[in-house]
Amino acid sequence: MASMADKNSPTDKKRVLIIGGDGYCGWATSLYLSNRGWDVAILDNLCRRAFDDELGLSTLTPIKTIHQRIKTWKEVSGKDIPLYIGDVNDYDFLTSCFQEFKPDHVVHFGEQRSAPYSMVDRKHGIFTQANNVLGNINVLYAIQEHAPECHLIKLGTMGEYGTPNIDIEEGFIEIEHKGRKDRLPYPKQGNSWYHLSKIHDSHNIHFATKAWGLACTDLNQGVVYGVMTDETAMHPDLINRLDYDGVFGTALNRFCVQAALGYPLTKYGKGGQTRGFLDIRDTVRCIEIACAQPAEQGEMRVFNQITEFWSVNQLCDLVQEAGGRLGLDVEIKSVPNPRVEAEEHYYNVVHSNLLELGLEPHLLGDSILDSVLGFAMQYKDTADLKQIAPAVKWTEFSKKKVAVEV
Amino acid sequence: MASMADKNSPTDKKRVLIIGGDGYCGWATSLYLSNRGWDVAILDNLCRRAFDDELGLSTLTPIKTIHQRIKTWKEVSGKDIPLYIGDVNDYDFLTSCFQEFKPDHVVHFGEQRSAPYSMVDRKHGIFTQANNVLGNINVLYAIQEHAPECHLIKLGTMGEYGTPNIDIEEGFIEIEHKGRKDRLPYPKQGNSWYHLSKIHDSHNIHFATKAWGLACTDLNQGVVYGVMTDETAMHPDLINRLDYDGVFGTALNRFCVQAALGYPLTKYGKGGQTRGFLDIRDTVRCIEIACAQPAEQGEMRVFNQITEFWSVNQLCDLVQEAGGRLGLDVEIKSVPNPRVEAEEHYYNVVHSNLLELGLEPHLLGDSILDSVLGFAMQYKDTADLKQIAPAVKWTEFSKKKVAVEV
Ligand SMILES: NC(=O)c1ccc[n+]([C@@H]2O[C@H](COP(=O)([O-])OP(=O)(O)OC[C@H]3O[C@@H](n4cnc5c(N)ncnc54)[C@H](O)[C@@H]3O)[C@@H](O)[C@H]2O)c1
Ligand SMILES: NC(=O)c1ccc[n+]([C@@H]2O[C@H](COP(=O)([O-])OP(=O)(O)OC[C@H]3O[C@@H](n4cnc5c(N)ncnc54)[C@H](O)[C@@H]3O)[C@@H](O)[C@H]2O)c1
Repeated sequence: MASMADKNSPTDKKRVLIIGGDGYCGWATSLYLSNRGWDVAILDNLCRRAFDDELGLSTLTPIKTIHQRIKTWKEVSGKDIPLYIGDVNDYDFLTSCFQEFKPDHVVHFGEQRSAPYSMVDRKHGIFTQANNVLGNINVLYAIQEHAPECHLIKLGTMGEYGTPNIDIEEGFIEIEHKGRKDRLPYPKQGNSWYHLSKIHDSHNIHFATKAWGLACTDLNQGVVYGVMTDETAMHPDLINRLDYDGVFGTALNRFCVQAALGYPLTKYGKGGQTRGFLDIRDTVRCIEIACAQPAEQGEMRVFNQITEFWSVNQLCDLVQEAGGRLGLDVEIKSVPNPRVEAEEHYYNVVHSNLLELGLEPHLLGDSILDSVLGFAMQYKDTADLKQIAPAVKWTEFSKKKVAVEV
Repeated sequence: MASMADKNSPTDKKRVLIIGGDGYCGWATSLYLSNRGWDVAILDNLCRRAFDDELGLSTLTPIKTIHQRIKTWKEVSGKDIPLYIGDVNDYDFLTSCFQEFKPDHVVHFGEQRSAPYSMVDRKHGIFTQANNVLGNINVLYAIQEHAPECHLIKLGTMGEYGTPNIDIEEGFIEIEHKGRKDRLPYPKQGNSWYHLSKIHDSHNIHFATKAWGLACTDLNQGVVYGVMTDETAMHPDLINRLDYDGVFGTALNRFCVQAALGYPLTKYGKGGQTRGFLDIRDTVRCIEIACAQPAEQGEMRVFNQITEFWSVNQLCDLVQEAGGRLGLDVEIKSVPNPRVEAEEHYYNVVHSNLLELGLEPHLLGDSILDSVLGFAMQYKDTADLKQIAPAVKWTEFSKKKVAVEV
């Protein structure tokens, strides 16, 4: 339970619907908020598990079914998490969830979130934009029609900004041009159908806040790393997923698994690509901060949800060093970059909003590296090396080449 | 036929596929280009005609079926226009058109283009973004897979920019920020699901030019007015559509019909809303200029396709005056604005790119006003006053209220 003095603890608007609550960020967040005293419900269509089936991939950690997870959480914590299995693109279903659960906040994690998956071929690109953009419009209508005071907390991505040659601000930028001034949405440049879907979401949400007065917090999240949170550690059934494959594995998590397996760290191209990162223990806290100190009606608030930035080369060095301390001999190998992206660029990101609201970051230190590496070493016997290679080229469309060979 | 000295006449890349060629801009463009010596084909799924059926609306002018139109054009001009009836969202169909016609240029007009239609209710909003955004992704894949050198000419809208307090540049803006500089996509703010769909298209196209090296011209077109072009005047069967209803009728065309009918001009709210406009005879010419002087591979060129800007109040005054000269007593009435938009704002638009390439604008003078008014008076007996009222509120979702009562 949160202490009374903590301004980021449950308010009387405490009903939180977590869309995508069976996923990596969503599961950790659901348990964290539930444990802190918020009333949590999960909505998920479990498509993330289906993507693994489709491509022959799997999480390194042995995750349980969502039903088992929720049952065990009830046993461990005494708390109920109502479960709604279905698609946000099914509006009748979404409506019935809103009418039954009556959320004060909707945290919308429920999108196809892999850039490589969106680039597999035309069908996967179309699926990603349809699933994400149309699903998010449904969420906007559901709020407007059934819960106009409900606060939307939407997950965007730092990748919406691309890598401009000027500092990246939080969602909006003050522009002086030909002697006049305005505060305008920050220019967006996406590098995959996935990143573009998030750009479209942001524009659509901005409109809904203006046209309908909805309250929205748009979290442009960086790359999340780590696998342990206090709650998921309470019981083996509650363990979170750890993706290490070339399609869903994100940079740092994937490197840690590669190191544990004695596989060279595969950096794409020159490795100068720089991105913002954060610990999953900060992801869950950021969501709580957004719930406890919500946006106003009619406001579109944008936070850059990162705590540090690193280049791929820096990450590789960090993992190599931490691996060394655990007795691992970690090699670094450059492979041809399957993506179309700048490999050397300026990168400086403003991310003060969440800090001002009370975020106390877990910085990337030995402890977290050790913990991800430790997890990876614990489960390394179940790993499948064939899943690690970069599987999707941005300029080639072939699902056959992506599915893992058996 | 074009004279040899005209740099904007057919080149040896002269095969032009007009997607949306049965629509208002597309039909005029198809005949104009065909007449000028380009090899034109039309692709259209005729959904625009279905929207009229759905809502009980109709064009003021008696348009013929697309089959009759093309047959008559062959009789009048001796020229063939191959016709492909189908949806760009049907990729197999789109592929077969590309393989058969082998376009050098694709002019993509084929989207749901009414802001009010997109705001009718959730289903119409979802339809608009799905039809437009996913259809455009299909066009990008079709070019990349079947005609990588084909030049895409995409219709965007000036409405993508919203009404910022700084000058509107052509697609990109040079930003100086904290001592650094970059040329970035101009910030976008859409005011309906329709306008937003065009914003999404622009971001998606920008990516495709970078990732795949496609050549694209994005035309941010203003509001088109007028109904006569040289070619559509050649035979009654070739007449173009003139929409005057509250859903598809655009400002100036609608005002002219209202004036001809002795109906007060319905301006929304204060009437300070300012927009860019152009004559349909310039629309067709702009497309030819884009074909004759195409974008480079890998280039995303953006032109603001307008020739003048006017506030709604100025338009009303112009129509009132021109009506007076034709003996019409034109009243102006302010009605509550069904849209959510700024009614008084700064508006200054850069639109020099097309002029530099050779566009010689038809400015809004007596002649054009007389011609639209003249058309309206000629057909006024077929008009249905019930179609004129603003039918869609931005904050209310009801298809029942939109369909015209009989
Ligand atoms: N993991 C990261 O590093 C990261 C970084 C930046 C942003 N994000 C964003 O955070 C969110 C969560 O990411 P994640 O890593 O937990 O992804 P994830 O794939 O593990 O979780 C997403 C969940 O949403 C569900 N879902 C997807 N589409 C749905 C639909 N139409 N209806 C209902 N449920 C649906 C999936 O089944 C899955 O359980 C995503 O929106 C992602 O874009 C993640
Ligand atoms: N009319 C204007 O004032 C104006 C202003 C700015 C931009 N534009 C843009 O110019 C383009 C043409 O506008 P218009 O006024 O001629 O519209 P229109 O509705 O008269 O024509 C569009 C045509 O595209 C077809 N179409 C729509 N979706 C399709 C699909 N999925 N597959 C195949 N065909 C499809 C329709 O049947 C229709 O014939 C649109 O993209 C519009 O957004 C028009």
